Amino acid sequence: MNSELKKLIDAIEPIDITVMARAQARLDSLTKPQGSLGRLEELAQWLVGVTRAERPTLSRKVVFTFAADHGVTAEGVSAFPAAVTPEMVKNFLRGGAAINVLARQAKADVVVADFGVAADFGHLPGLISRKIAHGTANMTQGPAMTEEQALQAIMAGAELALAEKKRGAMLFATGDMGIGNTTAASALVAALTGTPAEEVTGRGTGIDDAAFLRKVDAIRRAIEINKVDAKNPLAVLAKVGGFEIAGLVGVILAGAATRTPVLVDGFISGAAALAASRLAQPKPLRDYLAIAHLSVERGHQRIARELALVPLLDFRMRLGEGTGAALAMPLLDAACAIFNEMSTFQEAGVSGKNEPAENKKP
Amino acid sequence: MNSELKKLIDAIEPIDITVMARAQARLDSLTKPQGSLGRLEELAQWLVGVTRAERPTLSRKVVFTFAADHGVTAEGVSAFPAAVTPEMVKNFLRGGAAINVLARQAKADVVVADFGVAADFGHLPGLISRKIAHGTANMTQGPAMTEEQALQAIMAGAELALAEKKRGAMLFATGDMGIGNTTAASALVAALTGTPAEEVTGRGTGIDDAAFLRKVDAIRRAIEINKVDAKNPLAVLAKVGGFEIAGLVGVILAGAATRTPVLVDGFISGAAALAASRLAQPKPLRDYLAIAHLSVERGHQRIARELALVPLLDFRMRLGEGTGAALAMPLLDAACAIFNEMSTFQEAGVSGKNEPAENKKP
Repeated sequence: MNSELKKLIDAIEPIDITVMARAQARLDSLTKPQGSLGRLEELAQWLVGVTRAERPTLSRKVVFTFAADHGVTAEGVSAFPAAVTPEMVKNFLRGGAAINVLARQAKADVVVADFGVAADFGHLPGLISRKIAHGTANMTQGPAMTEEQALQAIMAGAELALAEKKRGAMLFATGDMGIGNTTAASALVAALTGTPAEEVTGRGTGIDDAAFLRKVDAIRRAIEINKVDAKNPLAVLAKVGGFEIAGLVGVILAGAATRTPVLVDGFISGAAALAASRLAQPKPLRDYLAIAHLSVERGHQRIARELALVPLLDFRMRLGEGTGAALAMPLLDAACAIFNEMSTFQEAGVSGKNEPAENKKP
Repeated sequence: MNSELKKLIDAIEPIDITVMARAQARLDSLTKPQGSLGRLEELAQWLVGVTRAERPTLSRKVVFTFAADHGVTAEGVSAFPAAVTPEMVKNFLRGGAAINVLARQAKADVVVADFGVAADFGHLPGLISRKIAHGTANMTQGPAMTEEQALQAIMAGAELALAEKKRGAMLFATGDMGIGNTTAASALVAALTGTPAEEVTGRGTGIDDAAFLRKVDAIRRAIEINKVDAKNPLAVLAKVGGFEIAGLVGVILAGAATRTPVLVDGFISGAAALAASRLAQPKPLRDYLAIAHLSVERGHQRIARELALVPLLDFRMRLGEGTGAALAMPLLDAACAIFNEMSTFQEAGVSGKNEPAENKKP
């Protein structure tokens, strides 16, 4: 394995269960029945365990929305033409896309980066270029990327994340744009988990039955021709992944390596999280992740099960871009606020629970 | 039926499906695959249908947190002493309770009102007094309230809501505080739906097995001794409800009567919503409601099914106060922002969906 990538993975430590126990004690001292805020309390505890902060805050939140194109679109697997990828990148930069709107609501910044869009943007203010190539190769005819390209994309994603960390980012969120990328993500999940293609393939942006059959067939052929081996996750990522997916793998690894909570968006981001988790093994990468929402894409349930994470929202979304992550951010902010701002029973002079009679010793 | 109450119910109209169809057309014109924001799009459409606003906004949001005590606590049905009700009211006024923290996060105001706390507060700045009595009577020995008291509480809740509407409130949210009120809410749900007590009774603030058995038994006895009849929802509310629950019934009716969306918190609020819906029949009250979260209290699923509403969040919460409603508010704000702020395909110059080959006529 590449030494830079190895260094990143070596830096991943278990999250801190000692501070998590202290966080639970604080949560139990607040003016509410113990555990009555359910998952909100668990999120607060998790944020303490990840960050080791005495009082966790997410004052700067960053969504990484990475864009790239996919050679597999030649197989007729998508409802929209590939031209939409660069058009949407421009929409992101003008602030008119769903991710811009939802990130503004959540007071998060959006980092838009070109990891391999099949168009030349020239100089576009606000766009970060990490273009590896003009789209991946068609994975039904051989590897989508070389391993070198996959590594280059991972490390570029990690570097962008580490730079934002230096600028004060306290939460990383993942997002994607790339016509054809649900095909790549489904192939990745099928290959990494040994699941038949049809069980982890969905309708993407809204394809009809004929395109759906072509999509499943393309994934099957890609898995076969590339002789994928789940024991080598980097090779799998290169063979059936995508540039933006590899970039997100880098963001996720950088998050875990720097004790930064990572809010994983939907299906494409989930596939990146699964690949990152396999690359990092035996490091407990998933402990640094929260899944923002359960996507409509059926492969997403498989990812959530593999990572043993329960999505925060179930809103039947399937847009990507990081929209689900941005939508879920206020839930994490709320968890911090509960932890930091509520009064304790003692401060508020509120009575505690009745002693059960049998516990009242004379 | 009381003429004031009848006037309120008479004012409830169906939500506007004509503007909802126009809203869907706008949603379909925005730069995303149609329907890809799932429930977020449905929420935007719903807010348009309720408010008839061209561009819905929720610039002022109000949580009504109503407090009262319950005579049934004499049966040993609660984990906390009844003294906690007034103590928590004071905590609300000092801003240290969970609802204060979450409402601040959501930029919502909290209206704290005493509908029947069994303590005298004297003058407490910020507390609205609508005290009907010092707690309800013990419902295992007769009606918790007279029908006159129940009506008085409903109309007081409605008046507070209508006053906030005049001050610009664009969303009503419901909240409650009252030791013993899960017993009242379970009794109400059991009585209104004809469900056995044990199927709609939970652990409240965290009671042990012995107290749980006492609680189920108390509900059974209350239902029997009061000869509840689901066909008379006002009588049911009076017999086994509570002052704060009746007050919330008023808020909910006032919301529907003034085309104001109502975000219903957890179990207690849900029981109020169910009672309001029965009182308003055949008016389509539930069309004005969203259920914020699915409570841990098992009776809450029954309420959601009766109202045919899917809770927005499933966070295993069981605190009340309006906390689930405040937590869900950013989801509604996000729905408004998506509707109002996203670019259309035309504005952004983004290509539409591929035409299926068979549709391309020569």
